[in-house]
Amino acid sequence: MSADEFETIAKLFAPLARDAGARGLIDDAALFAGHVVTTDAIVEGVHFRPDDPIDTVAKKALRVNLSDLAAKGARPAAALLTLIWPDARPSAQIAEFARGLGEDLARYEVALLGGDTTSTPGPLTVSVTAFGVPCGARTPSRADARPGQDIWVTGTIGDAVLGLTALNKGVADVRVTERYLLPEPRVGFAETIARFAAASMDVSDGLAQDAGKIAAASGVALRIEADRVPRSEAGRDADIAVLVSGGDDYEILFTAEPASRAGIEAAARGAGLAVSRIGVVEAGEGARILGPDGTPVPLAGYRHRLGR
Amino acid sequence: MSADEFETIAKLFAPLARDAGARGLIDDAALFAGHVVTTDAIVEGVHFRPDDPIDTVAKKALRVNLSDLAAKGARPAAALLTLIWPDARPSAQIAEFARGLGEDLARYEVALLGGDTTSTPGPLTVSVTAFGVPCGARTPSRADARPGQDIWVTGTIGDAVLGLTALNKGVADVRVTERYLLPEPRVGFAETIARFAAASMDVSDGLAQDAGKIAAASGVALRIEADRVPRSEAGRDADIAVLVSGGDDYEILFTAEPASRAGIEAAARGAGLAVSRIGVVEAGEGARILGPDGTPVPLAGYRHRLGR
Repeated sequence: MSADEFETIAKLFAPLARDAGARGLIDDAALFAGHVVTTDAIVEGVHFRPDDPIDTVAKKALRVNLSDLAAKGARPAAALLTLIWPDARPSAQIAEFARGLGEDLARYEVALLGGDTTSTPGPLTVSVTAFGVPCGARTPSRADARPGQDIWVTGTIGDAVLGLTALNKGVADVRVTERYLLPEPRVGFAETIARFAAASMDVSDGLAQDAGKIAAASGVALRIEADRVPRSEAGRDADIAVLVSGGDDYEILFTAEPASRAGIEAAARGAGLAVSRIGVVEAGEGARILGPDGTPVPLAGYRHRLGR
Repeated sequence: MSADEFETIAKLFAPLARDAGARGLIDDAALFAGHVVTTDAIVEGVHFRPDDPIDTVAKKALRVNLSDLAAKGARPAAALLTLIWPDARPSAQIAEFARGLGEDLARYEVALLGGDTTSTPGPLTVSVTAFGVPCGARTPSRADARPGQDIWVTGTIGDAVLGLTALNKGVADVRVTERYLLPEPRVGFAETIARFAAASMDVSDGLAQDAGKIAAASGVALRIEADRVPRSEAGRDADIAVLVSGGDDYEILFTAEPASRAGIEAAARGAGLAVSRIGVVEAGEGARILGPDGTPVPLAGYRHRLGR
């Protein structure tokens, strides 16, 4: 489906979500029974490659949901797993899947509550619903950005798309392939998000596109400076358009008042996590990523489809 | 996957579920944050036919989850939807899907909290997580059957498999095809279940197989009399082995103390729902369905695979 079609879908389902906790379906998570609740599915051939190690597939399915919780300022508590297993994939791999999942459940202290297992004539599909406990009184949404706020992002941007490209070419660059196979949800930053973030979401569809979602939901413009977008050593010489159009970063993109700068930087140091101030929220609409000469970076779309 | 393989999977994941609310993953629902939580996915070509009306697919995805809640004595409260849409299916159908879902959300008073939408190169897959509010202090599990209890089932058994057979043959018998396309979750019976049921589950894989699951989880034997298994007019002349081996009934199978007989029957009359006492729980293991001459009905397996 195209980005436009996903927009259409959101509009179709939004009227069905009358509950205040649903946040009109435009957010990445809902509030229910005192918890932050999120659900995300990953599909073979879309979100992971058919020959990715099966234990990393299990971990990725959980981690993309923990990333959503962290971006909402919530620490992980529990999860449900729906495993839709292809007829054609050896069921012996399920033990390895369970082992990988078990490692991450222990690592992130998540209780597995239950789930569903079924077979499919199609690709391996893993759907996880995760529950988090809010770290603070507020759960930041996409709609809370206001003009004058800073724009921040954790970690580095673009490594996962470089990793996907390397894997597709058969190049073994573990600096970036690990970022694609095993995203690191920023669980240790959830408390800082709850304390300081206005708008917040995790970067799964690319920095440029996800910044556009905050802009649209908040009714503001996001101006990001290309030179400030944090890069790893592996991404140093890459095209900025590729880095910010690629997806699967699972970093946290958030806005905050300028008065919070020192607090955010101290918290990041305490958490051992890099955080970068990459731009400002302005009146207007849309997200722009501006080069040093002030012209916008031309962007490529990214729709979670492999092998492009 | 075969039934044996599903058992293997349950054993692989069970050690990961250390939370008491997870019930060792052998139950159809978990307890979390004061709610009953369940998740069930339906897959095109497995749980529904590719040309089933798309609004009924949306409703079935929700209803199979509401059926789980009813069998646990909980009334529906909220749901999350994960829609995994095939590249090859016209996206124009999504409006019809949303319309059908909206009708059932209103009908059953369920708040749509959120969800996820992604595309797939494979079959249409719909995963729902549903939250229910317990109607009573107890949430009956599969493991609560004890010798001396009666075995009960709501409604009639076997209509859905007759409906599937009719649809596959191109025969339009709405008495049974509707039972296959649009199961009726026994939401109005949840309070009675909470009040009277010991063990309880909904019948999705066939009465015989699901009775076996209660027997295994409870460490008892279930003896069911074939002549007492309730049939609709459409099922009157059908082979009992087909009726009890077929799945997708979405009736509630439960056990209760003999002292509860009058209470259960009065509640069923009040709810306008038929309920039948079909056997007794005994010491031992396994579920048997016995014919009038005392010999067991020979059973066929049913693994939710269409077009058998």
